[in-house]
Amino acid sequence: MAVPISAVTTGPISGSTKGRRDLPDGSRVPFRRVHLTNGEHLDLYDTSGPYTDPTATIDLTNGLPPRPNVVTDRGTQLQRARAGEITSEMAFIAEREGVPAELVRDEVAAGRAVIPANHNHPEAEPMVIGKAFAVKVNANIGNSAVTSSIAEEVDKMVWATRWGADTIMDLSTGADIHQTREWILRNSPVPVGTVPMYQALEKVGGDPTRLTWEVYRDTVIEQCEQGVDYMTVHAGVLLRHIPLTIERVTGIVSRGGSIMAAWCLAHHTESFLYTHFADLCEILARYDVTFSLGDGLRPGSIADANDAAQFAELRTLGELTKVAKSHGVQVMIEGPGHVPMHKIVENVRLEEELCEEAPFYTLGPLATDIAPAYDHITSAIGAAIIAQAGTAMLCYVTPKEHLGLPNRKDVKDGVIAYRIAAHAADLAKGHPRAQQRDDALSKARFEFRWEDQFNLSLDPDTAREFHDETLPAAPAKTAHFCSMCGPKFCSMRITQDIRDAMAEKSQEFADHGNRVYLPLAESTP
Amino acid sequence: MAVPISAVTTGPISGSTKGRRDLPDGSRVPFRRVHLTNGEHLDLYDTSGPYTDPTATIDLTNGLPPRPNVVTDRGTQLQRARAGEITSEMAFIAEREGVPAELVRDEVAAGRAVIPANHNHPEAEPMVIGKAFAVKVNANIGNSAVTSSIAEEVDKMVWATRWGADTIMDLSTGADIHQTREWILRNSPVPVGTVPMYQALEKVGGDPTRLTWEVYRDTVIEQCEQGVDYMTVHAGVLLRHIPLTIERVTGIVSRGGSIMAAWCLAHHTESFLYTHFADLCEILARYDVTFSLGDGLRPGSIADANDAAQFAELRTLGELTKVAKSHGVQVMIEGPGHVPMHKIVENVRLEEELCEEAPFYTLGPLATDIAPAYDHITSAIGAAIIAQAGTAMLCYVTPKEHLGLPNRKDVKDGVIAYRIAAHAADLAKGHPRAQQRDDALSKARFEFRWEDQFNLSLDPDTAREFHDETLPAAPAKTAHFCSMCGPKFCSMRITQDIRDAMAEKSQEFADHGNRVYLPLAESTP
Repeated sequence: MAVPISAVTTGPISGSTKGRRDLPDGSRVPFRRVHLTNGEHLDLYDTSGPYTDPTATIDLTNGLPPRPNVVTDRGTQLQRARAGEITSEMAFIAEREGVPAELVRDEVAAGRAVIPANHNHPEAEPMVIGKAFAVKVNANIGNSAVTSSIAEEVDKMVWATRWGADTIMDLSTGADIHQTREWILRNSPVPVGTVPMYQALEKVGGDPTRLTWEVYRDTVIEQCEQGVDYMTVHAGVLLRHIPLTIERVTGIVSRGGSIMAAWCLAHHTESFLYTHFADLCEILARYDVTFSLGDGLRPGSIADANDAAQFAELRTLGELTKVAKSHGVQVMIEGPGHVPMHKIVENVRLEEELCEEAPFYTLGPLATDIAPAYDHITSAIGAAIIAQAGTAMLCYVTPKEHLGLPNRKDVKDGVIAYRIAAHAADLAKGHPRAQQRDDALSKARFEFRWEDQFNLSLDPDTAREFHDETLPAAPAKTAHFCSMCGPKFCSMRITQDIRDAMAEKSQEFADHGNRVYLPLAESTP
Repeated sequence: MAVPISAVTTGPISGSTKGRRDLPDGSRVPFRRVHLTNGEHLDLYDTSGPYTDPTATIDLTNGLPPRPNVVTDRGTQLQRARAGEITSEMAFIAEREGVPAELVRDEVAAGRAVIPANHNHPEAEPMVIGKAFAVKVNANIGNSAVTSSIAEEVDKMVWATRWGADTIMDLSTGADIHQTREWILRNSPVPVGTVPMYQALEKVGGDPTRLTWEVYRDTVIEQCEQGVDYMTVHAGVLLRHIPLTIERVTGIVSRGGSIMAAWCLAHHTESFLYTHFADLCEILARYDVTFSLGDGLRPGSIADANDAAQFAELRTLGELTKVAKSHGVQVMIEGPGHVPMHKIVENVRLEEELCEEAPFYTLGPLATDIAPAYDHITSAIGAAIIAQAGTAMLCYVTPKEHLGLPNRKDVKDGVIAYRIAAHAADLAKGHPRAQQRDDALSKARFEFRWEDQFNLSLDPDTAREFHDETLPAAPAKTAHFCSMCGPKFCSMRITQDIRDAMAEKSQEFADHGNRVYLPLAESTP
């Protein structure tokens, strides 16, 4: 298996070191510590796994070491939360998010949060997806029949988590699906999701009409055994929904959705995903694999947003949520696609109403159709808005969306755009830790601590590179001005002068009974 | 004057031709026609001027030809609108926006829209800024003491308008300010804005304390004579506001604001911009130069958003709006900076309340501080939201914000990100023409008309380039699949098959009394 070690990026992110907090049960909760030039530091949530730890030995062939205390014989996180238990994963997550462990347990017990952690994927560091916690970001990777190799996909996984992907979906459709997934799973520090249908379809030669429940079931079991943490299942695409898509501008744009629609029509019968849903629940419960109920009828264009087909499927997902939960299986709900801004919030409200506030996991949405090559931006707009409204995890969109498969640069651009959207939402939701980073960075900016500004940013390398382009000299990194205004016009420098003057003035002000400015303030133009 | 003609980009945008509609008065209203491979076409708003017209002769030394019917002896657009007149500019704009000329006149008369059109800038094509119309985008260019040349700035102006900048601000602060502006004005097809304070400060050797009303006034007159269409005036920074900024994380980040604050403090007296505001109104009225009342105290960080300093200044801008309008001068109001999502809409509501709905013109806002090098994205999020709420024009932010001066690539990235934000807002506001483009592009996408998809997009060149990266062969441009799924898994192709099947089915369906699917639809999992 030719996956050279040199294929993945290792080493710390600029200005940071990997830290770990030890829990009583032997777990080690990772964080990233940014060291500032003024002697202070800021600790950040860290998704990058051992790859950013220079003391770790990375051996892709052997995979990452398993975490301790993985329980495989006591049901799902949902079942254990309902029983009042704080699992090892919940304690880990509480420390990681800076929240009480009871909150994690209670949100999971209520079905408002999920912990995707297959018993057979002990390499992953536990994380939670739910609106009470920091907004998460998923990055899709995976090869297709046309491009890419296993080594490239493993590299993209490490690269995506380096920049902040909280989960990875392996959407491979080409050759070597099983093997690609094995390499990704064994080396991934984050939960891995898949769409089992893609592999099932490979098994029947790519012809949707030849799919059977048995082929699909066996594929699901195969992937559960491997350690997939969550699975997209398009069980909400029902026969009666298909005619609702006929007048759409872009019909059915979800691969899984269109495959199931084709199958239903060809056999004149209801989707086996729907009719066998209870069987599926039993399988997933055995491994604690989380459902990601797929939105096979999501809108592929502004014209199709919030239409009858989309919301009919969402209603069915609501039914299925109840079934899954009755089997003790964790559930999240997939949503959006292309939705104009004024129709975004309705998606969240309806999902919460129909699906008992199961975590919402949305692609974008793209707020317009007209910018292929920039859809990380069109969708970061929609993603920020939908996350503010309560979406728990955002599925990234890269600049290559609609045009091709993402390369390394696209993966990073997509992850960074989505970290922006997620963080903007955390700020807007008043997440307790979020603004610390903005404040630290802005303080560094105002005090001309350039290196601190870079290192506190989402992408220190690019920030530094951009600064170098205009003012490459090392002294510019400590200069009390920047290239935008030049030394004479610097507003920040002038403000410092104003502060000094004000400090002087305030004494004078006090001496004059705090009335110096009043007459002037009342002058009119 | 070494500005080589080869410095600017000419020629049509991919797949488009320049069109013009003749008005009875001899004006020619530009549009861009995108030609589709199915024989249809779509006409788009066009900001690019003669540079995209292969039949035009471009001579930067002589500048663009003036438009006919420029009236220089009958006051401002505001005064003429109040008198019930539909000016040549209003007729032009009505045709350009596809709205009744009476709407343009009435919005201008009410002060809810402005037409920045200095009598001495006849080279520009008239446009309107107001919330009843399409959201506009401004691009800042200009050299600083550290970088750039005149030729580069002229090139950036042409480049920015090519990709959709509705206005340009020349923010030069270095040498040759007058001459740079002259080259830009004479060659700009869009209105040009400036901050006269920057040049005034150059005249006093860069020392804010040496500024005087007389130096400033003479600079304003010089720029009015040259043809500047709108001017940022930071007349709302009052002595009493300055102490409100002392506890801020990032103090005063506006250059103009910090300069005036420094002057006020040094002289212990009220801002001459405020005390001489009526004099300024008289000057601007003579040329029909529009005020852009500057937000000298805009927040430079999330921590400082919507604070007492910011809103105190906004109140003063409200007063000044009334003064300007009483002199018949058109006014818009500058706003935001760094504002978290949940505090954005309040800015618009307060501006509308305090400033009689004068057009709001906002920088971003940036929805987080933590992404230097990606602030076109952090701010496109805020810009889309604030434009949906009623902001009339968005001032772009480039990836170089906070780090350096934008180069050509940054200018394009900034303009495209802001065209996305503006268009997303137009869609959300239900602008009648907006969705036509989304629908046309999505239809092309669904029908695998790749060239049409590229040509209808905001940036055909990059969309095509990204597609080429994965599937470079020419046949791929007509392929009925793409690289994301490969030929076997294409959801769009499957949907076409479903449509065919459904067409067959619907006959069968009718034959069976439309009841084929009902029993199945009622099955449960």
